[in-house]
Amino acid sequence: MQLDKLETKISIEDEAWQLLENSILYYQGRPIGTLAAYDASVEALNYDQCFVRDFVSSALLFLIKGRTEIVKNFLEETLKLQPKERALNAYKPGRGLIPASFKVVTNSNGEEYLEADFGEHAIARVTPVDSCLWWLILLRSYIVATNDYEIAYRPEFQTGIKLIMDICLANRFDMYPTLLVPDGACMIDRRMGIYGHPLEIQVLFFAALRVARELLICKGNEEIVEAIDNRLPLLCSHLRQHYWIDIHRLNAVYRFKSEEYGKEAVNLFNIYADSLPYYDLDKWLPKKGGYFAGNVGPSQLDTRFFTLGNLMAVISGLSNETQAEAIMNLIEKRWDDLIGDMPMKICYPALQGEEYRVVTGCDPKNIPWSYHNAGSWPVLMWMLTAAALKTNRLDMARKAIEIAKDKLSEDEWPEYYDGKKGRLIGKQARKYQTWTIAGFLLAKELIEQPANLPLVTFEQLPLEAVSRACEFELNSIERY
Amino acid sequence: MQLDKLETKISIEDEAWQLLENSILYYQGRPIGTLAAYDASVEALNYDQCFVRDFVSSALLFLIKGRTEIVKNFLEETLKLQPKERALNAYKPGRGLIPASFKVVTNSNGEEYLEADFGEHAIARVTPVDSCLWWLILLRSYIVATNDYEIAYRPEFQTGIKLIMDICLANRFDMYPTLLVPDGACMIDRRMGIYGHPLEIQVLFFAALRVARELLICKGNEEIVEAIDNRLPLLCSHLRQHYWIDIHRLNAVYRFKSEEYGKEAVNLFNIYADSLPYYDLDKWLPKKGGYFAGNVGPSQLDTRFFTLGNLMAVISGLSNETQAEAIMNLIEKRWDDLIGDMPMKICYPALQGEEYRVVTGCDPKNIPWSYHNAGSWPVLMWMLTAAALKTNRLDMARKAIEIAKDKLSEDEWPEYYDGKKGRLIGKQARKYQTWTIAGFLLAKELIEQPANLPLVTFEQLPLEAVSRACEFELNSIERY
Repeated sequence: MQLDKLETKISIEDEAWQLLENSILYYQGRPIGTLAAYDASVEALNYDQCFVRDFVSSALLFLIKGRTEIVKNFLEETLKLQPKERALNAYKPGRGLIPASFKVVTNSNGEEYLEADFGEHAIARVTPVDSCLWWLILLRSYIVATNDYEIAYRPEFQTGIKLIMDICLANRFDMYPTLLVPDGACMIDRRMGIYGHPLEIQVLFFAALRVARELLICKGNEEIVEAIDNRLPLLCSHLRQHYWIDIHRLNAVYRFKSEEYGKEAVNLFNIYADSLPYYDLDKWLPKKGGYFAGNVGPSQLDTRFFTLGNLMAVISGLSNETQAEAIMNLIEKRWDDLIGDMPMKICYPALQGEEYRVVTGCDPKNIPWSYHNAGSWPVLMWMLTAAALKTNRLDMARKAIEIAKDKLSEDEWPEYYDGKKGRLIGKQARKYQTWTIAGFLLAKELIEQPANLPLVTFEQLPLEAVSRACEFELNSIERY
Repeated sequence: MQLDKLETKISIEDEAWQLLENSILYYQGRPIGTLAAYDASVEALNYDQCFVRDFVSSALLFLIKGRTEIVKNFLEETLKLQPKERALNAYKPGRGLIPASFKVVTNSNGEEYLEADFGEHAIARVTPVDSCLWWLILLRSYIVATNDYEIAYRPEFQTGIKLIMDICLANRFDMYPTLLVPDGACMIDRRMGIYGHPLEIQVLFFAALRVARELLICKGNEEIVEAIDNRLPLLCSHLRQHYWIDIHRLNAVYRFKSEEYGKEAVNLFNIYADSLPYYDLDKWLPKKGGYFAGNVGPSQLDTRFFTLGNLMAVISGLSNETQAEAIMNLIEKRWDDLIGDMPMKICYPALQGEEYRVVTGCDPKNIPWSYHNAGSWPVLMWMLTAAALKTNRLDMARKAIEIAKDKLSEDEWPEYYDGKKGRLIGKQARKYQTWTIAGFLLAKELIEQPANLPLVTFEQLPLEAVSRACEFELNSIERY
């Protein structure tokens, strides 16, 4: 019996590694990414592409395993796809964007080239704001793994980083330190009421700013570096203050006066208590639990729990230690809701009834407790594990992996699960979804080799005043 | 009887002029704007300020009457309030913004200075994106009225125009020619589901681009001019195509396939027919009527009729002639809904029930058929009149003014009206609201002197290849 178990364990992991291997995308003979899914039973649509967002899980795993070449190739090739010129045609991707995905195409001469998609081909034409943020985060992971700082100091990488910062820090109408984006600009890439200043983008923005600050050569980039140094602490405290929800904060919000005018306003965003599900939250919020709200805007406090944003807040050090503890407490105490039978819900709770209709535009793929609307996404397991490692809650991660393990293989590694407990294989889920496979393996690796955690974590703010790159001069580097 | 009527007419107009006179704001002895409202019965809050958006109606009226000095002073002083430096603190207004409002404050030495509000003081901290657009539109009106091109060629005005263009045309994540803004960034300055790419902002953006193209000196601004020339036709055709709704278009949308992937997608924004009130629109849309939708985004087609955007589309020439006709047809055929007993509804229909709760965040000021949620705003009368003039439908404007006239005076010129027909004085409406008074007078003046219409209208696109300003060199101007 014991032996049987061991064998199953080995075979599930072996199977996963084999599947990951099969998903590797080659370009001119070199590995440069992984396909989104490799499910022969359905039409490929865009699942035959390498998505920047999706590849991060595989990439981290490759880095841990010392297979750094594929990540390097990926970073180099995607950087080449970044538009470097000002786009005069408003329908063309702006300078600095990193594509959502790319695929390898062969022309009539048998030569391979890469075709990028910046959202122009995507369903509903959503803009992939998170791609350039993930790209920066992955660049740093690669450097942490290889100590190959040289790559970042190459002129083309310096330009790439600078262009991403240009687009993120561009002059704008907004007066918050957060980033304004349209609906569906991140992992949740369909209309889900996450327009404005959604948590996921803000947390990735925070991490991306940290990376740029570490890797940008200061000389010649003084204005950008100064802008980052100014933005980072403001962004951090804005989120820690205005997005945070626990029972104390809920009490304050619940009794807010509204229609306050002037600088002394307490209810800064003019939130009306009636718009909050305060009765549900009164029951749901554990005494010592808390989390970052999904979104904050004029008369808007989206109290849904969004997993990626909250876990990445812990991992990136955006949350302070108390908040990180509170987030993990919440997940532990609300295990049935957030983990259930498949780790882990992408958000909670689902939009239902008229609210679902109004907020999603009647999206049949996002019906309540399905897909982005509170479906369960195995890929999130690695983020849960990393957050658990960082907060010394390893048992939570172990338990989650244990729950997922057998089922994932049995069910052929689906993209997502549906239902309140996550026991239904996603209505339109692909099988053999690469980031499901990689997410599972990465979670396991992180537990077995916790020393790899710094691939994705950052020290707490404040930063040291000078980044490593500040020792260099831009001109001296350009001669590389 | 005939005499009585005449006397009443004279006295209502005289009363209005007198009230407008009383609302004039003086700064260091010179007139520089008008107060939002002058209602002694309630606390001033921010109604003692001059709002850029509100002042436009008064300003046009002053220009018609040859009182151009107040408009010139306003343009000069608000320009001084525009931040010229890159804001490093993310909570400070960005370079190029024109404030939502300003007021005259006296310091302890008895000296007057202007205090600007860029939304930092406003309820819910909304960003006034429309201010800089209206500022440009008004600058051109002033020049049309005075032929004083010199003002635009002054270095500080050239810089001001350039900075506004910089912020409007900044590099961005979006891949539409439209402008991405947060909710409540225009006349509707509270949460109303107009986040993303709302019509009002897009139309004002179109007009502002036209102005900048006319007034910017080309030499030295080649990049901006090229960007404008590229953006304008794309913006125009994007709106004419994707925002337009008539019965033909509704039929197409109703039968759209969804989940289309790739460049050939017809349902570009992945709209689901279930999200449209197609049964209501089937009845409401007149055979020869049509209008621009309130908003378009991922799985979003906001079919509400927004008045300012539609009327300004006609006035600015954003709509083609057929569309302009169709908009006026719609207003004529749906007179009871859109005009009723008080011209004119700000939007139609109201958000109700759960949709109202979800979309407004339970805003008690925006309950159904009140305030921004389908309340009636007399100020819109001048836009109705201008649009009617442009399309030779003067009778519609005359009829609207006739309806409003006696009531406005009797009711002491309220800010807005509530109810389906607009017979309830707005629940929280100020009395003696300046733009109600100015809107009425301006409508009357436009009818009596249609020659003033070019103050706000533009020739149809395509533009002449070169603007007047292109004859000059930036350097030669700076010596002015």
